Amino acid sequence: MAAPEAAAGRAVRLGIVAGGGDLPVRLVAACRRQGRPVTVVGLTGSAEPRPDEGIADAWASIGEVGKVLSLLRDAGCGEVIMAGNVVRPDFASLRLDWKGIRVIPRVISAARKGDDNLLKCLVEIFEEEGFRVTGADQVLDDHLLPAGPLGRLGLTEDLTGDLDRAIEVVEALGRVDVGQGAVVADGDVLAIEAKEGTDRMLARVAELRAGWDRRAGLLLKLPKHQQERRVDLPVIGVATVEGAAAAGLAGIVAAAGATLVMDRAGVAARADALGLFVVGITR
Amino acid sequence: MAAPEAAAGRAVRLGIVAGGGDLPVRLVAACRRQGRPVTVVGLTGSAEPRPDEGIADAWASIGEVGKVLSLLRDAGCGEVIMAGNVVRPDFASLRLDWKGIRVIPRVISAARKGDDNLLKCLVEIFEEEGFRVTGADQVLDDHLLPAGPLGRLGLTEDLTGDLDRAIEVVEALGRVDVGQGAVVADGDVLAIEAKEGTDRMLARVAELRAGWDRRAGLLLKLPKHQQERRVDLPVIGVATVEGAAAAGLAGIVAAAGATLVMDRAGVAARADALGLFVVGITR
Repeated sequence: MAAPEAAAGRAVRLGIVAGGGDLPVRLVAACRRQGRPVTVVGLTGSAEPRPDEGIADAWASIGEVGKVLSLLRDAGCGEVIMAGNVVRPDFASLRLDWKGIRVIPRVISAARKGDDNLLKCLVEIFEEEGFRVTGADQVLDDHLLPAGPLGRLGLTEDLTGDLDRAIEVVEALGRVDVGQGAVVADGDVLAIEAKEGTDRMLARVAELRAGWDRRAGLLLKLPKHQQERRVDLPVIGVATVEGAAAAGLAGIVAAAGATLVMDRAGVAARADALGLFVVGITR
Repeated sequence: MAAPEAAAGRAVRLGIVAGGGDLPVRLVAACRRQGRPVTVVGLTGSAEPRPDEGIADAWASIGEVGKVLSLLRDAGCGEVIMAGNVVRPDFASLRLDWKGIRVIPRVISAARKGDDNLLKCLVEIFEEEGFRVTGADQVLDDHLLPAGPLGRLGLTEDLTGDLDRAIEVVEALGRVDVGQGAVVADGDVLAIEAKEGTDRMLARVAELRAGWDRRAGLLLKLPKHQQERRVDLPVIGVATVEGAAAAGLAGIVAAAGATLVMDRAGVAARADALGLFVVGITR
């Protein structure tokens, strides 16, 4: 009888190319729970060097493509996940290694066509080097947002107008390969997310709405139409719920099955405590 | 021989319903230069109560529609301009006068369909009451952005990709009646303007790009397709130029003939001093 650890121990070693935020940390924790061997290469400038968690086995700058590939290959990784937020570098002043120099024209050219093209290009580069590229949801599969309410509260009837408006706006952006999120209240589009991230967008809405004493409106997050889902799924977590509450919103709507929920129990509990809904929609 | 002042003196009195920002102040200054009689009703909570400038002859809250109309009618205004930024109120807790109560369902219903519908609705309300509604550009007509560079610098060849990308994004938003602005650098859509205004969007880009030491990218402002141009023309001023410089942008592009430039000489001088272009495009 094989223990789960032994079975998982035969799993191919996972390489994580880690940017910032909670996602890489949670991936490592999930691998450890599953007994899956994992090697993390932290991207300097993007991944936080959390010394207490010590998740990164090695570090490389985003231009050191050769170094990243060698580190993963030498560690014996067959599968790779790119996870976490990466600040797009100034390509013009990027320090590159030999492999970086070879691929950078291709990367810049893809980057000019939008984030989705950039991510597809990065996936291709890893695949050409013999790695299988997978998504964080393959390791954290119980972390995908289910359809319906995550906590006690659901979407109320009076917010369907705001939801329709938010879908209209986010889909219009998705068609031009931008953005994953928007905030709408009383039909008014208060904020649209581009590069600043959801937390900063919500902080801005909180400022705009200083003086309101009524919960209204919602945050919508949807994956882009063309989105490279292996790399760039929308993510919500406890901070998103707290940010939405501070912004005076009634709740959060996101795509069921296509949104990563970090700390699902924590998100549901915080939403219930703050009186917000978190709802997965299928479309 | 009639002096210009005397000719202008026969002009119908202009009523200005004033929100925040420089535009109402500049309109009053232009009317005084032209010798045109003007009455300003400041919207409490939106118009700044600049006591040194003392532009508002009277004040009303945004729900006191009857009071605003009476003030303008009693002053003998035949023509009205709505000018400046207005923070959308929480309609649910708005204090209303009798006229406000009569029109508020219509206003809320229009507001739910987007800003442009809201503005059209407000224009209709004034027109039904016998006022002619005109645009700030009719008084400040030398303040419309001309085609081509405003200062010494023009748009450089290497930025045409960023401009195309910005146009694509802003037009996609315009089709769903949102937004007037976006920031694009190296093909990357850094920020999209919704309700926060251009200055705050540029401040956010400055944060995102901390660490860059190279000017790149541009701010694009365009009127929305369906935009009620009498009320809501895009505006640029010295603060826009300074914000764009702080955000590390190479310049600003806006629609020629459909963008108000506050302090044109000042904008050109500041752009030259900071090494930015400000360019009007026709399309």
